[in-house]
Amino acid sequence: MDRIPILRMGQFLLVTIQVDLYDRLALDLEADIVKMVNKTGARGILIDISAVSIVDSFMGRIIGNIGVMSKLLDAETVVVGMQPAVAITLVELGLPLKGVFTALNVEKGMDLLKDKIQVEIDTTEPDDDDDLAE
Amino acid sequence: MDRIPILRMGQFLLVTIQVDLYDRLALDLEADIVKMVNKTGARGILIDISAVSIVDSFMGRIIGNIGVMSKLLDAETVVVGMQPAVAITLVELGLPLKGVFTALNVEKGMDLLKDKIQVEIDTTEPDDDDDLAE
Repeated sequence: MDRIPILRMGQFLLVTIQVDLYDRLALDLEADIVKMVNKTGARGILIDISAVSIVDSFMGRIIGNIGVMSKLLDAETVVVGMQPAVAITLVELGLPLKGVFTALNVEKGMDLLKDKIQVEIDTTEPDDDDDLAE
Repeated sequence: MDRIPILRMGQFLLVTIQVDLYDRLALDLEADIVKMVNKTGARGILIDISAVSIVDSFMGRIIGNIGVMSKLLDAETVVVGMQPAVAITLVELGLPLKGVFTALNVEKGMDLLKDKIQVEIDTTEPDDDDDLAE
């Protein structure tokens, strides 16, 4: 398995992670998603991790990175389908997945993305209080 | 990897096959999809095989089976993202995937499913012959 497929669905990209994200694969995925957002102008990314039962700090960081990078390209990231054990592990590792939203399943994630994009379109009175403290 | 996840998206189910479907996994997938159609009342199934580069007669048969079984439960099956080499192999194996539709990518597959369901909905003049045979 060389690459995790990224499916385009209208304004969204859908990624289903079904295998252990060893280092090379995770970095490829990160790069592929960012390229795909750039190419398609997608506004949202749904990452389904319902088949992932083991998570480590590297994978947590990669998901966080995808969120931040996509945000820079004006796309929101929603992680869906997280197993309870994975949520526990992430918190115990001190990785609360900043920069990404989460939802229980794909449908709810899709609704969340639609809301986010709608809200962004509605409230375009940009008050540029960017928090640059990091 | 125990199970291939089946994602519910409104009236559709989406399955992304990313690993080699060895026998047990393929049979489980078949059973899981049929159960899921039954549980959710889904009207369409999208099977993305863009990450599949090797196909054998068993996998071809399983996909055909999924199509026929789902049809019995009133759901259409569309296989999307087939690689050219896989198409060649399927024809050479004499497995033209009867019972399933195909489309180039997920978006086109989704459109095809919507068309199919629409056509079916248009021509429903419900004659309440409830089949109570069970």
